[in-house]
Amino acid sequence: MGRTLAEKILLAHTDADTLAPGDVVMVRCDVVMTNDISGPMAFRAMERMGAARVFDPGKVVIVPDHFVPAKDERSAALQKLLRDWAHEQGVAYYEQGRGGIEHQVLVEEGWVVPGSVIAGGDSHTCTYGALGSFGTGLGSTDIAACLASGAFWQAVPTTIQVELTGTRRPFVTGKDVILAVIGELGVSGGLGSVLEFVGDGAEGLSLDERLAVANMAVEAGAETGLFPADAAVAAYLDGRTTRPWAAEHSDADAQYEGSVLIDLESVPPLVALPHSPGNVVPVSEAKGRAIDQVYIGNCANGTITDLRQAAEMLRGRTVHRRTRLIVVPASQRVYRQALAEGLLDVFAAAGALVSAPSCGACFGGSGGILAAGEAAITTTNRNFRGRMGAGESSVHLANAWVAAAAAVAGEIVDPADLGVAS
Amino acid sequence: MGRTLAEKILLAHTDADTLAPGDVVMVRCDVVMTNDISGPMAFRAMERMGAARVFDPGKVVIVPDHFVPAKDERSAALQKLLRDWAHEQGVAYYEQGRGGIEHQVLVEEGWVVPGSVIAGGDSHTCTYGALGSFGTGLGSTDIAACLASGAFWQAVPTTIQVELTGTRRPFVTGKDVILAVIGELGVSGGLGSVLEFVGDGAEGLSLDERLAVANMAVEAGAETGLFPADAAVAAYLDGRTTRPWAAEHSDADAQYEGSVLIDLESVPPLVALPHSPGNVVPVSEAKGRAIDQVYIGNCANGTITDLRQAAEMLRGRTVHRRTRLIVVPASQRVYRQALAEGLLDVFAAAGALVSAPSCGACFGGSGGILAAGEAAITTTNRNFRGRMGAGESSVHLANAWVAAAAAVAGEIVDPADLGVAS
Repeated sequence: MGRTLAEKILLAHTDADTLAPGDVVMVRCDVVMTNDISGPMAFRAMERMGAARVFDPGKVVIVPDHFVPAKDERSAALQKLLRDWAHEQGVAYYEQGRGGIEHQVLVEEGWVVPGSVIAGGDSHTCTYGALGSFGTGLGSTDIAACLASGAFWQAVPTTIQVELTGTRRPFVTGKDVILAVIGELGVSGGLGSVLEFVGDGAEGLSLDERLAVANMAVEAGAETGLFPADAAVAAYLDGRTTRPWAAEHSDADAQYEGSVLIDLESVPPLVALPHSPGNVVPVSEAKGRAIDQVYIGNCANGTITDLRQAAEMLRGRTVHRRTRLIVVPASQRVYRQALAEGLLDVFAAAGALVSAPSCGACFGGSGGILAAGEAAITTTNRNFRGRMGAGESSVHLANAWVAAAAAVAGEIVDPADLGVAS
Repeated sequence: MGRTLAEKILLAHTDADTLAPGDVVMVRCDVVMTNDISGPMAFRAMERMGAARVFDPGKVVIVPDHFVPAKDERSAALQKLLRDWAHEQGVAYYEQGRGGIEHQVLVEEGWVVPGSVIAGGDSHTCTYGALGSFGTGLGSTDIAACLASGAFWQAVPTTIQVELTGTRRPFVTGKDVILAVIGELGVSGGLGSVLEFVGDGAEGLSLDERLAVANMAVEAGAETGLFPADAAVAAYLDGRTTRPWAAEHSDADAQYEGSVLIDLESVPPLVALPHSPGNVVPVSEAKGRAIDQVYIGNCANGTITDLRQAAEMLRGRTVHRRTRLIVVPASQRVYRQALAEGLLDVFAAAGALVSAPSCGACFGGSGGILAAGEAAITTTNRNFRGRMGAGESSVHLANAWVAAAAAVAGEIVDPADLGVAS
């Protein structure tokens, strides 16, 4: 019987001869990643396990990004603990100013290769599926076990095949693709499963857009989201990594738990209304909602592709009087690229605040928190009640075109109405 | 009997025919400024005074800058209150992304002219003395009275004449000049007085450097620091303001409380050691102190002049492995200028984190807080114990050349030792 891509990757990382969905197997990690929230908790758990050293310093990566730069004594202390620990253990550490948001950094720096297994102390570790890597977010105790032993228990997931076909309409991005999938599956439709993205519509997504899609697989409840590696991934990795890898695909006779077919020609720009990523409507149905804050950034959509889209919309325009716009490049590399392309000046000239790479605002940590009564539209991945601040605030999720257009209009609009070419 | 510059300005803003040091007079404001810390307190106090409207909407300026972008629900609520109040009162409001640090913004936007009186809800309102304006920081209750009535009670200060002569050595800036003055006077030597900066050494300071000098007059305990307006100020204001102004100077027979003479040729780059701005030593005596964080920014030294100095030191170099560097342009204009000159890319390439205009880190508010046991060197204006974070952290004050050199070396060094021309 054939195997799915996820089953092949997991099998290659166990001592088992075979496996099937539902089996609980011990999986070896190629990389273990943690940050300034999950790291300190994991280090304490590791100590309690009696483990003094990490299993392999060459396979551990630490990225402070949740409270960077430190917003208070507590976050400063967590970062110091992280820095000191990384130094003591001799593991990779990306200091603020030299890294960025963990998932973007791991992809950029060549830690993520097709067929690998990456355990991350962050729920959006599924982002790595964009490159055909089984990235999965674990709790701090599991991360502690990974740091100490290089392995974790994983229930083998089923796979849901998501077939994307056809050509996208103007102003439709990877963000809209995954919002369409979540709208279809619901926020728990992917529980216990991997979403595998295939079809000409999947192959037609740029790497940045695949990152956005894989990133939000967890918002459908899935273990991870996988794109089979193709020539685009090979080109991206060329010169970026020395890690060995091989492209894998699901067998033709692999067993799927289910399938979803998305005809991209039928997908308009979408908005997830408060307070759920599954509350998806066409942008036309969200038009006219007044917006206090627009936020363009985060591990899903703070890439150079997103910043280019936002800049195209903002060039020669200004942010609406009642609205503030915060732009946060996902990494130092993205920051420098955006700077070189003149995008940061477009944002600054429009009246946007351009911050340093951080994931603070997305989860209500720092750097753009909402007050009670305020409404935001963001390129982030979660709009749960109170996610970005006060319980009485609201967050709409959308792509960078839609978010930037709302910054100009002061309310949600269809980007097509602003007269910019996609 | 002749009058000092401060006496002339105050007299022109009272109904009195004459005044003398020690007199308590009611002074009219040309501008009242407040921010996201002092503003909300002042608005409440104004309400309690029974005043519904500001005395003159054209003379009130609101700049959110202390917790920008909002770090938590509380700071978000303060900013919303500020924004709503400004809108309701019809006063000038500089939204984040369109302003910056209050003092830099008021100077850049032409609110500050020679001979004016500006009441600000911030202790560094004395910065405006760089342009010959009597700027003074008031508590929130006094600011409330200013908002309601346009006037405040002021004890007429004495004046200490600070004469600056000679040519500066390499790597000596306005920051070193004021540190030398504070070292000489002590942190309470200016109590009840105005510091008036005169002499060829004062005239030789650029406007940005005068801002740095006047800014820290309050660190010597002074009411404000005044530079008589000259051709450099006139040139700066040309096209920037429509407010009427006239240059004033102290009369030749004015009475001074005291005088300080600083021979600039004898001033090396200086460092204020922890935990007082008056704890001033030559950089040579601070050499070798390990530095965890370098911060270049704030209302004293986040100007384009400071950023140019820092970039010159960092160009083609990298921030030391153990050190993090945070660069915060003082305003959106400074940000765009630094971007256009390629300075931001120099910082990013060196491994610095470039943040958006804010004064958060300087006072321990957000955006770069220190953990216990950490040491920083900064271009800010206060290094009191715990000022930037934990009580067991320490802050050294210095100019941007010295701060940037420490970022490269990972410890305090004499910038001359790094082989860069001043």
